[in-house]
Amino acid sequence: MGHKKDRFGSAIIMAMDFESIFIYGVLASSIAGLVYALLLIIQINKYGEGNEKMKAINKAIREGANAYLKTQFKSMIIPVLFLVIFLYYTGTASGMDIAIGRAGAFLMGAFFSGAVGFIGMSMAVKGNVRVANAAGKSFNEALKIAYRSGTITGMLTDGLGLLGGVIILLLFGPERAYAVLLGYAFGGSLIALFMRVGGGIYTKSADVGADIVGKLEKGIPEDDPRNPAVVADLVGDNVGDCAGMAADIFESYEVSIVAAMILGLAAFPGSIVGVVYPLVVRAIGIFSTIISTYFISISGGVGDAMKAIRRGYNLAAAISITGFVILAYYYIGGYVGDYLYGLRFAAATFSGIVLAVLINYITDYYTSKRHGPVKEIVDSTQTGPATTILSGLAVGYESTVTAIVAIAGTIIASAILFLPNYTMVAYGISLAGIGFLTLTGNNVSMDTFGPIVDNAEGLSEMANLEPKTREILEQMDAVGNTTKAITKGIAIGSAVLAAISLFNDYFQVAKIESLPLHDPQVFVGLLIGGGIPFLFSAIAIRAVSRGAFGMIKEVRRQFGENPLILEGKAKPDYGRCVSISTLAAQKELLTLGAIALLIPIVIGFLLHEYALGGYLAGAILSGQLLAVYMATSGGAWDNAKKSIEDGLLGGKGSDAHKAGVVGDTVGDPLKDTAGPALNPLLKVINLITLLIVPIVLTYKENWLVNLSISIPALAVIFIALWYSKRPPKM
Amino acid sequence: MGHKKDRFGSAIIMAMDFESIFIYGVLASSIAGLVYALLLIIQINKYGEGNEKMKAINKAIREGANAYLKTQFKSMIIPVLFLVIFLYYTGTASGMDIAIGRAGAFLMGAFFSGAVGFIGMSMAVKGNVRVANAAGKSFNEALKIAYRSGTITGMLTDGLGLLGGVIILLLFGPERAYAVLLGYAFGGSLIALFMRVGGGIYTKSADVGADIVGKLEKGIPEDDPRNPAVVADLVGDNVGDCAGMAADIFESYEVSIVAAMILGLAAFPGSIVGVVYPLVVRAIGIFSTIISTYFISISGGVGDAMKAIRRGYNLAAAISITGFVILAYYYIGGYVGDYLYGLRFAAATFSGIVLAVLINYITDYYTSKRHGPVKEIVDSTQTGPATTILSGLAVGYESTVTAIVAIAGTIIASAILFLPNYTMVAYGISLAGIGFLTLTGNNVSMDTFGPIVDNAEGLSEMANLEPKTREILEQMDAVGNTTKAITKGIAIGSAVLAAISLFNDYFQVAKIESLPLHDPQVFVGLLIGGGIPFLFSAIAIRAVSRGAFGMIKEVRRQFGENPLILEGKAKPDYGRCVSISTLAAQKELLTLGAIALLIPIVIGFLLHEYALGGYLAGAILSGQLLAVYMATSGGAWDNAKKSIEDGLLGGKGSDAHKAGVVGDTVGDPLKDTAGPALNPLLKVINLITLLIVPIVLTYKENWLVNLSISIPALAVIFIALWYSKRPPKM
Repeated sequence: MGHKKDRFGSAIIMAMDFESIFIYGVLASSIAGLVYALLLIIQINKYGEGNEKMKAINKAIREGANAYLKTQFKSMIIPVLFLVIFLYYTGTASGMDIAIGRAGAFLMGAFFSGAVGFIGMSMAVKGNVRVANAAGKSFNEALKIAYRSGTITGMLTDGLGLLGGVIILLLFGPERAYAVLLGYAFGGSLIALFMRVGGGIYTKSADVGADIVGKLEKGIPEDDPRNPAVVADLVGDNVGDCAGMAADIFESYEVSIVAAMILGLAAFPGSIVGVVYPLVVRAIGIFSTIISTYFISISGGVGDAMKAIRRGYNLAAAISITGFVILAYYYIGGYVGDYLYGLRFAAATFSGIVLAVLINYITDYYTSKRHGPVKEIVDSTQTGPATTILSGLAVGYESTVTAIVAIAGTIIASAILFLPNYTMVAYGISLAGIGFLTLTGNNVSMDTFGPIVDNAEGLSEMANLEPKTREILEQMDAVGNTTKAITKGIAIGSAVLAAISLFNDYFQVAKIESLPLHDPQVFVGLLIGGGIPFLFSAIAIRAVSRGAFGMIKEVRRQFGENPLILEGKAKPDYGRCVSISTLAAQKELLTLGAIALLIPIVIGFLLHEYALGGYLAGAILSGQLLAVYMATSGGAWDNAKKSIEDGLLGGKGSDAHKAGVVGDTVGDPLKDTAGPALNPLLKVINLITLLIVPIVLTYKENWLVNLSISIPALAVIFIALWYSKRPPKM
Repeated sequence: MGHKKDRFGSAIIMAMDFESIFIYGVLASSIAGLVYALLLIIQINKYGEGNEKMKAINKAIREGANAYLKTQFKSMIIPVLFLVIFLYYTGTASGMDIAIGRAGAFLMGAFFSGAVGFIGMSMAVKGNVRVANAAGKSFNEALKIAYRSGTITGMLTDGLGLLGGVIILLLFGPERAYAVLLGYAFGGSLIALFMRVGGGIYTKSADVGADIVGKLEKGIPEDDPRNPAVVADLVGDNVGDCAGMAADIFESYEVSIVAAMILGLAAFPGSIVGVVYPLVVRAIGIFSTIISTYFISISGGVGDAMKAIRRGYNLAAAISITGFVILAYYYIGGYVGDYLYGLRFAAATFSGIVLAVLINYITDYYTSKRHGPVKEIVDSTQTGPATTILSGLAVGYESTVTAIVAIAGTIIASAILFLPNYTMVAYGISLAGIGFLTLTGNNVSMDTFGPIVDNAEGLSEMANLEPKTREILEQMDAVGNTTKAITKGIAIGSAVLAAISLFNDYFQVAKIESLPLHDPQVFVGLLIGGGIPFLFSAIAIRAVSRGAFGMIKEVRRQFGENPLILEGKAKPDYGRCVSISTLAAQKELLTLGAIALLIPIVIGFLLHEYALGGYLAGAILSGQLLAVYMATSGGAWDNAKKSIEDGLLGGKGSDAHKAGVVGDTVGDPLKDTAGPALNPLLKVINLITLLIVPIVLTYKENWLVNLSISIPALAVIFIALWYSKRPPKM
């Protein structure tokens, strides 16, 4: 089981070991996932794009989306280059090869994260017009195209996430991979943060702006082609819900692997059994996803889409669980010489799957139209917008407590298996994270399905397709809303589990044995860390308001200057609205990025490693609480409004509906910008902390270094905060 | 300096010590405070109550308020009796006298807390009619009456808070007082929780109900006598803002004293210098308040009320600071033989005063009409209620980060003075809490001033007094709004500082040296604890909605059944509205009480002392964050609405105003029910934790005991939660 620590030769030496079969198997699985994605891309491209009008609208969406991502990637170049140097520098203490490896891995993580977002979004844009077209012929075919377009993103997430981890392991060997993996995880997280935040601000500025002038002021329906912001709104679904979400989940997938690998090495000193196990579990997950998503496409009956999707999910779960139970029993059980003890690792992994099921259930309970909470909000719309908001807040607050109790239960379950061995406990918790994201492929497929059918429906509205086609797409859109909401819960849960695992890594890296809560440094760190998600949310909400203000102004201007637009006799200038949202998102991105990256640096160099540990814990706690509340309140308001639109309390146009629209508009930036941005925020904070803490420890006593790092950082933070508070231009 | 631990004889023995001069001096000051309150009561009673109409309305308010408190005290009897037995039982381990003492101290704390609330409220009700009457003659006299009526509550808070602590110290001696003080603090906190929550639900059910039907549906002004809920609304100001707030601050005052006494004993083993110092600081505070509040009454010029009040506050601060600097220098400095070291204790106390000033400034910045945040909300009303809500949330979220950074800074400042001696550090932090609340008398006076002039204004509206009188009262009301907002910030800050001090006590009591964050038990406790304030807020918001629903239904019924009411030709049935609010508050109280008391018990007996410690930390963190956000958002929305009413953006009746009213209505239950209830919640959780942890430790291995306590407790929690989710009766 021993491994030579020869840096580049380790791959060859491992090739002769028993584990290397597994490792190369994992490598092969990740490539298989990518090949499957490629096959699906070829398949999707073959479908027809419909009539000229549809093609034209789709082209506008595609151009808008590409233009957005191009601008965004450009604006990320400077921070990325700056951080490559920073990562290289942080790695130098462990040797030149680690320094280069870490910087390179950072670029790889950033590139993969960006690629998943970009390709996923492109395929979604390609998919939506094809879904709209196919819906005219067959529900089943439309469903197949939509789900397969989504599956491409799912397979890219799985394939690239696993590929990067294995490559680093093979190049650097198990003992040294850790230092490089941090760079890989950081690259993925950073790009995910940017894409999540940028996409979220874009999509909601466009959406809120379009709704306020279109729906509230002018009384025209959603997705009406007369609205100048409608293309920006459709583009937003793609850059926010596809590109942003894909990068976000990719990053959770990748970070949870990295965390488990690091903790696995500590749990089994001198062996890589703890590193191989999570990798193989994930490889099993890839095959489960391939089999089950293929299964969907052949059995989804008409009008039964949700059941078909669920059946595929359950099949994937069954395959995965069987796989990792056998693996844990024979492989880990065999290694430790106690097969039943081996099963504990399967149980820890399984607890993650149970949590995923629980989170699905909790999200569904709090946000679907069928259950009490949304009905409570619907009732409260009768007494106006104020009570609508209050009941939505109550629902969101309650849901976040339910979710955190479920997460706490999972931690207890996965920890209790290994008590009192704390190193093994930390590994057990990270395995729950592995289990939780085993079915990432399926989850991402389900999620991307949402914006694809949403866009297809919007497109059918704009292209004025036949009523029957539009009805089919409306049915699919309802399914998509549910799948999107479920995945959002998973994304948040995964962020917290990954963050907790990274938090456990912190003890290894910071060389501290304990973070005692009664130490005022830890407590102060906890307080400030707890504040950060609130600050971040405040800025994100303001950013959306500002972006929406710009959009409102532009839409009003177009309607005002050319009254023919509202009569449908002149084409609005869609492009200007697209570029307004794009610019708005870019401006806000840098503020939020600066805060995410620089505050931990200030805490680290001014208050040192204990405060930094408390900071992490505080940020995880309040980040989780806020993220779930925002996602739930937003989703519940959305569905309460939809319930009224379905005919409750007087339907569209009633006072209850107006109150419902206010709820939905408040919920939008919470559920699609501020809330989801907290996931990558938590991981960026965690990773930057892990990267800087060795430097913090080195210069702890040197106040010249401490101050000459913290004071400029503080200055930048204050400038960013001041800039984030500028009023919108009226 | 040594003290004999003879239990009842210690008072006599101390009488011969140097410190006993101080202790009896403190006793005398507390009595002086109470005598001053009595003199003010006699003085207030002498003023005239105005014409018959005013007397009649005042009588209705008085009866409503008394009926409410009577019902509330009744519904508290059973929980209090149950808890007396519980406290007796928890004390038996330390001996029979401690058991009796603890149970008795609990009753004393409960009684004092209730008395401060009851007398404070009664005097406010007596004061408001006299203020309205005096305003017809002289602004100066009206101001004097309003401020002195408020000062009565302030002096009761100071006097009783200090009296209880000193009595227990004298009876049980310094070494044994701790175990009894816990009971005293718990009694005060429990009643404060009930009065805060009950009063908060009452006042907002009445207010929201009155506003929705009156202002929004019927378009009649606030405080219009035609509105059947108007008396309930005025009663609500008294039971919520006077009785609830007074009990709340009393409890912070008392708990911070108890925490400092406990930590002071640990910081100076074998001496009571650490116990005497905070007591004497508080005694100095009483004299400062007496002098400065007397000063107000003779120099407040017309139209210059806020300046006069501030001048008094600054004078009190100057006297206090001078006093405790001298005390720390000579008394502690003399004891340790290092006068400059003694000054560190003054510095720690001073850091609390600095924090109070900072919190004042922060509250003012975020909630006053003059500054950016409220202006931002006003701007956002132009695009409707949704953007109004979003900007208010952003303001609240940002403010809570600013406040928590200020608190973190104070902890650092008071801790850094004593590092690396952690016992002394804990004492230093508790001294910041002492400093923070030194001027409680002034703060409570300022706060109670608010509802008194608010009610006086309402009364003048209802009794149709002369326009000039009403104008004077409107000016005073504007001042009252500012003083109320400032005190709310202080109340929250004090709760957190007291909670942090109690948290430090936890280590002493739980006999644990460290609460390591990487221990999954601590982390799980942290997660669940962080959720509790969210759960509590969700229930409180629902409770207000439900209460308001009942009120809306009743007001609509009265308007519907008798159209003459709206024409002003028939008198509405005020009494029914009062009793609807009263009943609503009682029903909800028990749910929230059960959750506050039972969840720590379940955590303790199921997950034990480490999880309980994490639970405390999590609850403090998220409680502070939520409480400040709720207070600020609510206050800022309120003032944004008022800015529009003052004439901005089209004034009353404009669309911007309607959006502003939505913001204000959302903010009401946040700022006056959910947010303020978190203060006593944190302390009740803290104290119950301190009380049960010895029992938890005793039965830690005995699962029969653990389960037979936790399972019934869990069952009650679930029933309470289920009950709290019942829909309002339509």
